[in-house]
Amino acid sequence: MSGPNDITTKNNRKPDTWIERLTRRDFITLASAAGLVAAGGLTAGPLFGCSSRETAEIPPQKDIAELISRVSPPLGYRPNVVVILCDDLGYGDIGCYGGRAIRTPAIDRLAREGVRFTDFYACNALCSPSRVGLLTGRYPLRSGVTWPLWPLSETFRRKFVRRLGNGIFGKLGVADMGPESSAEGLGPEEITLPEALKVAGYRTGMVGKWHLGDFSVKPEYNPVRHGFDFFYGLPHSNDMFPCALYRNDEELEADIGTNQARLTGLYTKEAVDFIEEAKDGPFFLYFAHTFPHQPLYASEEFLHKSAGGLYGDTVEEIDASVAEVLKCLERNGLADNTLVIVTSDNGPWFEGSPGGLRGRKGQSYEGGFRVPLIARLPGVIPAGSVSEAAAMNIDLFPTCLALAGLSGPADRVVDGADITELLTGREKEPSHEAFFFYHHDGLEGVRSGKWKYFRNINHYVYPLPVDKEDTPIGRMGRGRLGRWPLLYDMDNDPDESYNLIDTYPEVGQQMLSVMEAWEKETADNPRGWIR
Amino acid sequence: MSGPNDITTKNNRKPDTWIERLTRRDFITLASAAGLVAAGGLTAGPLFGCSSRETAEIPPQKDIAELISRVSPPLGYRPNVVVILCDDLGYGDIGCYGGRAIRTPAIDRLAREGVRFTDFYACNALCSPSRVGLLTGRYPLRSGVTWPLWPLSETFRRKFVRRLGNGIFGKLGVADMGPESSAEGLGPEEITLPEALKVAGYRTGMVGKWHLGDFSVKPEYNPVRHGFDFFYGLPHSNDMFPCALYRNDEELEADIGTNQARLTGLYTKEAVDFIEEAKDGPFFLYFAHTFPHQPLYASEEFLHKSAGGLYGDTVEEIDASVAEVLKCLERNGLADNTLVIVTSDNGPWFEGSPGGLRGRKGQSYEGGFRVPLIARLPGVIPAGSVSEAAAMNIDLFPTCLALAGLSGPADRVVDGADITELLTGREKEPSHEAFFFYHHDGLEGVRSGKWKYFRNINHYVYPLPVDKEDTPIGRMGRGRLGRWPLLYDMDNDPDESYNLIDTYPEVGQQMLSVMEAWEKETADNPRGWIR
Repeated sequence: MSGPNDITTKNNRKPDTWIERLTRRDFITLASAAGLVAAGGLTAGPLFGCSSRETAEIPPQKDIAELISRVSPPLGYRPNVVVILCDDLGYGDIGCYGGRAIRTPAIDRLAREGVRFTDFYACNALCSPSRVGLLTGRYPLRSGVTWPLWPLSETFRRKFVRRLGNGIFGKLGVADMGPESSAEGLGPEEITLPEALKVAGYRTGMVGKWHLGDFSVKPEYNPVRHGFDFFYGLPHSNDMFPCALYRNDEELEADIGTNQARLTGLYTKEAVDFIEEAKDGPFFLYFAHTFPHQPLYASEEFLHKSAGGLYGDTVEEIDASVAEVLKCLERNGLADNTLVIVTSDNGPWFEGSPGGLRGRKGQSYEGGFRVPLIARLPGVIPAGSVSEAAAMNIDLFPTCLALAGLSGPADRVVDGADITELLTGREKEPSHEAFFFYHHDGLEGVRSGKWKYFRNINHYVYPLPVDKEDTPIGRMGRGRLGRWPLLYDMDNDPDESYNLIDTYPEVGQQMLSVMEAWEKETADNPRGWIR
Repeated sequence: MSGPNDITTKNNRKPDTWIERLTRRDFITLASAAGLVAAGGLTAGPLFGCSSRETAEIPPQKDIAELISRVSPPLGYRPNVVVILCDDLGYGDIGCYGGRAIRTPAIDRLAREGVRFTDFYACNALCSPSRVGLLTGRYPLRSGVTWPLWPLSETFRRKFVRRLGNGIFGKLGVADMGPESSAEGLGPEEITLPEALKVAGYRTGMVGKWHLGDFSVKPEYNPVRHGFDFFYGLPHSNDMFPCALYRNDEELEADIGTNQARLTGLYTKEAVDFIEEAKDGPFFLYFAHTFPHQPLYASEEFLHKSAGGLYGDTVEEIDASVAEVLKCLERNGLADNTLVIVTSDNGPWFEGSPGGLRGRKGQSYEGGFRVPLIARLPGVIPAGSVSEAAAMNIDLFPTCLALAGLSGPADRVVDGADITELLTGREKEPSHEAFFFYHHDGLEGVRSGKWKYFRNINHYVYPLPVDKEDTPIGRMGRGRLGRWPLLYDMDNDPDESYNLIDTYPEVGQQMLSVMEAWEKETADNPRGWIR
């Protein structure tokens, strides 16, 4: 079984872009020319001992423009892209996914006018790694952002408590109080979706929660150093302090504290302003909401209005924000050439509904990884369609590049696949042979076709510690008592209730081979550089 | 709000039995006469410092028979009762509850011929306390059986490990490795369902898992000392060792070990034999299956046959056992005068489906407490009916007593309510004003009407320990970040996703009052003796 990286060959489409002929150096040169150097996103020197990004000669702007103009994008135009990412929104929270408590008319309308995916995954069940996957098209292990990033100005005491949690309780397997990501933020060597789209002339903006490096302490992690022409928002989650509010690299407030009820409104205004300003397009807007991540705050207008409580209030406010964005697109005649995507970074945390799926945020069960995905692009995506093909948020990078007339960078593995054909409904089968489920830096499981396999899984043995050989249960032998490996048939058993490993040991063996092959591949070249 | 103990007044039915006029001493006298003394179930002296059961004069047998003959049971006859209890079977595992993977034609047929409850609760999310509630009609705190009972012959090392778990990790709130029940088994002062039914002339049998005291070490915990004329089965769960196989008080095997694939078949044969032997009735059979509790074993005939894996194999074997029992009833002309009940002791553990509900075994969420309940009694229970009224397994005791022409013992609180009218469909509203959710000896929550309220809940904060005031999250204030109290609207939000406490604080206050009133009542008189 080959890796999931064969974007062009698997889809069997003739590469029609100049960019895939380019070397990594060439790509970076072009990307640099399109504005990256100005934004300070390029550095030299080895990073993580694997590769380096080189400062290169920048060709004259007109040569770049000339090159770009010769590329014909597949739709005949370069669609604007608006990605609306909710934080910890559950699979079952919104109306078109079966939610009954929360009113989400704008998102439901998007689904009626576009496609809804039933089996869409985040690439991780936690904030930072999920986001790095979305923005780079690569599994989080590539960039080393494998766990939520903590504020860099954290007190010694807090850090100590976390590390104690990781060190002692983590080892005992009784708690996971927060390991460290090997990276403290998004490295400059990673190519982000806005960096790539800028090569094709996109204007790029971001509003909301970043969580890929605390730029309030280290400016090199600011989104404007990673491909965004414009940024308005926060360095990390709203439960991490201090949490500063920024416009580009200007600090507006040092700490938002508990004054958060205004955030969705502020974000929406900035997002609309960005679209108005960039409307001559093409543009890319990454709108990463702070809510419904805890702690929850809704503005006066939405407070206590939802049957989903305060959580529902925040989601209904986000839905109203989606409505504002859609109105802005319509007002500016952009509805028909803008791809609008709504999704979530992972499953629900304390509140929110996983829609009957097992597990929640932080777990490799479906409830942690499976999220809503709705996409609208009139004339391209059939209205009211539903795709049951599995896909993952790492697919958005190559898909948006393809729509912009670009293929992926040639110097590195891109784990995502171009899912344009799934969006259009011309293809029904997943673009991946396998999807991988990580918890921090541990590969726990894999999905391939209808099968999902876990070699092991955090928080599975629950609440009793029965995984020690010397307990009474240990006597029963491995695999007998709620023990790995686990094999689920996602068609018959979407809530991962029945371990079929005894019934289909050969399928389990096959799935294990897929995992091991992947592990070998990624162990040899975790950063995925193509030399 | 009054307690849930007013069996007769709430249902507004005229007491029509002699027994409720009796004092506790009288009841015990009668029960004794009906065979309890012979079975050794009576002792003298104070127990738990609260009450005592006194040895009393036994009236002549003919006087008892005379008394009993004068009692007219409500149906005009005393129905036989067969309670089939599955172990850790999930709310979503069987066909008539929406399960797709496991074939359960016999149980589904029972539902078509009887009533299916959508909101039926075990009184606890763990084995022993759930069972003591079913057999006594009282919340587990009454008897002190509040946690799974461990084998009394456990090694010092195992006990030490468990206590360490309880002492250190339990206190830290990061693990619950097994506290101790205050009772080591079912005390002789508790009146069990078979003890009570014997007063009305029932022959009583039990097959399967007891888990209310390790009688292989202390014979006073043997079911035959607690009202059963016949017993065949195990002292506790199949993951606790040594696990002996008994017939009555005779040890057949000292430890079943891993030789468990035969259990369901052996149980079924014994159950059928008991029915054949007791068919002149009335009789009571308590058939407590060992499976699908882990570790899982199925016999050759069922192994690898189910789409629900080994777990499904065991459930399909249980379903076939149900079919055998039904066939036996039909063969003996007993189908029409036998109440057949199928239920589970708590939600699913590692495997098994909670049917989209939140939580699993051991948790106070619905997934831990809500279980299937199917009941058939032709001519009394309308075929194919569904009851959406909440009810609890503590209701089976007073319901069976009522059907036998008895009311509850007068010397003690019975927490359960007679739900005959829910079974018949004449009543749609719950017989309880409130249902209480305990984790070990801690009262965590309450359900009343459509509302479910948690003052606190074990394993809610998950997986991060955010409930400490000095964490960043502590700054956000209580209740903000996934914190109690929790208030759920079970009509809109059956999977407990949305905390409505901010929207309806007055409802929360009301629910808290109900809890506090109950706590006061039970603190004053935990054993519930009526003096």
